[in-house]
Amino acid sequence: MKRNLYLKTKPVEEALAEYMEALETAGVLQPQIEWLDTYEALGRQTAGPVFAKCCSPLFNAAAMDGIAVRAAATKGASESRPLTLKLGEDYKIVDTGDPVKAPFDAVIMAEDIIEMDDETVQILASVPGWNHVRSIGEDIVAGEMILQTGHRIRPVDLGVLLASGNLQVPVYKKPQVAIIPTGTEIIQPKDEPQEGDIIDSNSGMFAGQVTEAGGVPNRLPIVEDDYEKIKKVILEVLETNDMVLINAGSSAGTEDYTVHILREIGQVLVHGVAMKPGKPVILAIVSGKPVIGLPGYPVSAYLAFENFVTPVLRRLSGDMVSASAEPKNLVKAVISRRMVSSLKHREYVRVKVGKVGEKLVAAPLARGAGAAMSLVRADGFCIIPQNCEGYEAGETVEVELYKDLKEIENTVVSIGSHDMIMDVISDMMAAEYRNMYLSSTHVGSMGGLMALQRGETTIAPTHLLNEADGRYNEAILKQLFGPGRIALIKGVDRIQGIMVKKGNPLGIRGVEDLTRVRYVNRQRGAGTRVLLDYKLKQAGIRPEDIDGYDKEAATHMAVAALVASEEIDAGMGIKPAADAMGLDFIEVGVEAYDFAIDRQNLQLPQVQAFLEILRSPEFHEKLAELGGYGWHQAGNIIMIE
Amino acid sequence: MKRNLYLKTKPVEEALAEYMEALETAGVLQPQIEWLDTYEALGRQTAGPVFAKCCSPLFNAAAMDGIAVRAAATKGASESRPLTLKLGEDYKIVDTGDPVKAPFDAVIMAEDIIEMDDETVQILASVPGWNHVRSIGEDIVAGEMILQTGHRIRPVDLGVLLASGNLQVPVYKKPQVAIIPTGTEIIQPKDEPQEGDIIDSNSGMFAGQVTEAGGVPNRLPIVEDDYEKIKKVILEVLETNDMVLINAGSSAGTEDYTVHILREIGQVLVHGVAMKPGKPVILAIVSGKPVIGLPGYPVSAYLAFENFVTPVLRRLSGDMVSASAEPKNLVKAVISRRMVSSLKHREYVRVKVGKVGEKLVAAPLARGAGAAMSLVRADGFCIIPQNCEGYEAGETVEVELYKDLKEIENTVVSIGSHDMIMDVISDMMAAEYRNMYLSSTHVGSMGGLMALQRGETTIAPTHLLNEADGRYNEAILKQLFGPGRIALIKGVDRIQGIMVKKGNPLGIRGVEDLTRVRYVNRQRGAGTRVLLDYKLKQAGIRPEDIDGYDKEAATHMAVAALVASEEIDAGMGIKPAADAMGLDFIEVGVEAYDFAIDRQNLQLPQVQAFLEILRSPEFHEKLAELGGYGWHQAGNIIMIE
Repeated sequence: MKRNLYLKTKPVEEALAEYMEALETAGVLQPQIEWLDTYEALGRQTAGPVFAKCCSPLFNAAAMDGIAVRAAATKGASESRPLTLKLGEDYKIVDTGDPVKAPFDAVIMAEDIIEMDDETVQILASVPGWNHVRSIGEDIVAGEMILQTGHRIRPVDLGVLLASGNLQVPVYKKPQVAIIPTGTEIIQPKDEPQEGDIIDSNSGMFAGQVTEAGGVPNRLPIVEDDYEKIKKVILEVLETNDMVLINAGSSAGTEDYTVHILREIGQVLVHGVAMKPGKPVILAIVSGKPVIGLPGYPVSAYLAFENFVTPVLRRLSGDMVSASAEPKNLVKAVISRRMVSSLKHREYVRVKVGKVGEKLVAAPLARGAGAAMSLVRADGFCIIPQNCEGYEAGETVEVELYKDLKEIENTVVSIGSHDMIMDVISDMMAAEYRNMYLSSTHVGSMGGLMALQRGETTIAPTHLLNEADGRYNEAILKQLFGPGRIALIKGVDRIQGIMVKKGNPLGIRGVEDLTRVRYVNRQRGAGTRVLLDYKLKQAGIRPEDIDGYDKEAATHMAVAALVASEEIDAGMGIKPAADAMGLDFIEVGVEAYDFAIDRQNLQLPQVQAFLEILRSPEFHEKLAELGGYGWHQAGNIIMIE
Repeated sequence: MKRNLYLKTKPVEEALAEYMEALETAGVLQPQIEWLDTYEALGRQTAGPVFAKCCSPLFNAAAMDGIAVRAAATKGASESRPLTLKLGEDYKIVDTGDPVKAPFDAVIMAEDIIEMDDETVQILASVPGWNHVRSIGEDIVAGEMILQTGHRIRPVDLGVLLASGNLQVPVYKKPQVAIIPTGTEIIQPKDEPQEGDIIDSNSGMFAGQVTEAGGVPNRLPIVEDDYEKIKKVILEVLETNDMVLINAGSSAGTEDYTVHILREIGQVLVHGVAMKPGKPVILAIVSGKPVIGLPGYPVSAYLAFENFVTPVLRRLSGDMVSASAEPKNLVKAVISRRMVSSLKHREYVRVKVGKVGEKLVAAPLARGAGAAMSLVRADGFCIIPQNCEGYEAGETVEVELYKDLKEIENTVVSIGSHDMIMDVISDMMAAEYRNMYLSSTHVGSMGGLMALQRGETTIAPTHLLNEADGRYNEAILKQLFGPGRIALIKGVDRIQGIMVKKGNPLGIRGVEDLTRVRYVNRQRGAGTRVLLDYKLKQAGIRPEDIDGYDKEAATHMAVAALVASEEIDAGMGIKPAADAMGLDFIEVGVEAYDFAIDRQNLQLPQVQAFLEILRSPEFHEKLAELGGYGWHQAGNIIMIE
């Protein structure tokens, strides 16, 4: 097995600085210039100063509707001695913008004249020369500088460019960026996947990132893992592109050719960066152009792009302001869970950020490099520096937000148990209560209540069985929080059960049969797991008797997907998840999925919006569509006394 | 003369609310939906929730490069008892992403195995089931909601959409907006203007504004002032557009047909709004679609668009967040000059904003509705409410910024005399010292020194003659500020003179000849005017003997443009301005154009950048190109003691 073991990875800043310096030395960071039709130049940056080619106004013009007169000839007019003027001889009718020419040199407003007949007016006051006349060049003078270098062209600039005779404008050219997906196992999103195939979703993401960084993305067909073929494509696209991205093959696997190819045809400056995710990055220069190898995992790919491709693209596209080390949108937030990190790298942890009371709370999301949804769901990054081993829950950390703080303040933060209705409510909040949002993190019922205890969530969805009386939520809330503090917002009744393959080929009838199948469990603290444990205890079965009791999935849907696969036979969850994956479902019990909340937060506008949705017929219709839910108490509030 | 006198104008909020309500009632604010190829969907907003169509990963896959094994078969392996595994039978080589299938159910990293030969490895530890395996649906589960309604699609979303089988995505359609320029005197920017012609620069600006507000602009050919023709075009474009803008003819002139046409073919809800600039707005509904008549003056046109077209477009394009009354970027600033406004309207005054010491200072720019350059130069608006008569200099006002505060903090604020080198320096700052800026307002030398006295400017460009000794600047600064506070940054020597038409047809030799020509003067407090007054006094000429002594222009270039026109024969100014307009120039004297500054501000980084430029050979080259300048002292600093 030939592997590219990169012995030592470089710190992020060092790697970037080294690369930028090499590019600078090679003279490849100079943006190019093109002349654009002014109408097409919105949002582009001027590549040099722009001067007016003509004046505006082009001539002395009436600034008002009225009559043009000779100022000198109006002398002496007054209320007691009106002056009579004759059309043609003494005045000319003008609308705003009409030229005012010799012998006329002033304008009297329509409101200030008395019409005697069609050819005669009277005026009651004299006017000075140039009265209500916009003189030539009053707005723009030919030859003056109207836009300076590096100015981003706005709508008002378009108006002034056109008014000043600039029909074309020099702007920095957008760099052309080739995106080459490689890998024998990679297929296009439109292709039908065969076993082992991986959909190329990165090219689309990169295309979006290139566009946002000011470039033009050129997506190329997938190239199989073949040294010569990959090399040929790179050399070809270098002829017509300003930059080349190769995905993936930047790692150290048996078929990771990229670094060898780049060493053969160019200069590899960096291979491997001390960041996580995102380590397997290759920074190279080939034929005097930047060529970057990006890792395959979507989160790694995204972060490697933002850290290394974006800075290069900003420079190539002439955007010096964004290219300079701009302070990001940094906020302080309390971290809701312990995060351990290695001293070997800087780690980017995706977090959901919420405002609970007066404090911002950051809840870490899935940390895997493959967890693309964690990027979609995240509100920002918590960056753990290379020299830091992590943070304890409750510590204040710095978060780089990429959502508006306003939006975060209008969000119901939900930490706790998972149910598909949270997505439904979240969508209804966004669609019907614009500017109101619901943000869910799934850590199980107990995890949610702990977060509520620490003041880190607005609501905690929970379905915890009280073993003593077989009832849900209320008793446990009273026990945990005492009386007077908490309210329970009633949610839905839902059916819990065992999901099995279509037709139930193994003939499972209940928890007693789980000892003879391959099971997948939920995480510790999840209400579903509590229910399983309760049922197992009743049936006298020990956890270690179940194959897969230790294999955990984080949501009902994740369990359903695994049960649908070859490797797993059964898992517990809710009926809509089984339905969604076409599985059979053996009912185990009905439980209450409710929301615990601090009473003082009930009046928050976003919580009111949440309550309105719970009570709305539209929501109940959606529950009926999903199936497996009861909603007769939805939106009721029970004070825990 | 038939005029549309709108007797009563409506307050801005009232007019907008009335119009939006009428549009809502007519049911025309509902955004439309289209399905887009996902690759094209960057930046668009989802028109409904989007669900995953497939899982990601699609199968249980290796999370690391290494070997796939049966977890159960690794039991007992340890450093002291290595376990030997055979290829095919006990393990399979896998790269990251390769499927892990029965009978294999775990992966051991390449780093943790010892290669014995090509078909044999040893391991030193056992692994649990599912070790380094990404299970099916671990990232995305088929059926789960991945994007909610109204979500603006980012690069990471594109990746997840493609990975989850969403090749198309429902988004809000961009509304089509027709832009109809009307007016017999209006010509296209590309046409050669004849006398009285006005260049249609508004259509280009509107197109930019439509794009920024989420619509697709459709610019139409210019329609002459003809009732039937305009009506026909409006009715035609309504068939294929979601909204129609008509420019101009919305005012009350003799040829302003728009309101009559709209009354005939639809419903006019508002004609005339109590704002300045921007009063002549028509808000109408025709064939169930919004039709808006916009005023012709560029500043009026811009403000009327922002206040009335943008809110409608935001709603039509589904952008509810921006459509809602979002708080703008408001800052408190000290106003540098008195601003008087009428109780009849809300007034939008364009201001330059600078940070001087710890305070933000807003300097009002030209207030005319035709002053398009004031929009380009402005950093924001100071809005004078309808019920307010204005502000005194030094009062704190609220300014709606449309520039980044960071940029404003990195700016050398210059208030004072005008010279073309200020544009040159400004461009060099922007081009070479990215993130450093120079912002100039021209109020004449004395006005600048008053602003410096009040702490409202960083530098004050000045060229004031001390009549006693015929020298420039130093004596006057000492007299005004006393010793110890001020430093004088030496700028350029420049030649002042009289600009006359090419060939000097009136045979002007000096100021003594100004009594027999049509003159244009500079504003009070301008150094050039001080010089004229000095020279007139020496020559024994009274100001009232000069025709046009009271006609003022604000810059050298504006004077030059007027002298180039038919109506003016002569004006005083600097040589480069005369050269730029192809005028003859009669030298009157050489003066020093310098910069007064508070000493404590000399060390500011932006001032250091300014000084570096003054001293640079590149700047001196540009001065040589312009001609008429001396720079042997440029950048020297003289302390005024």
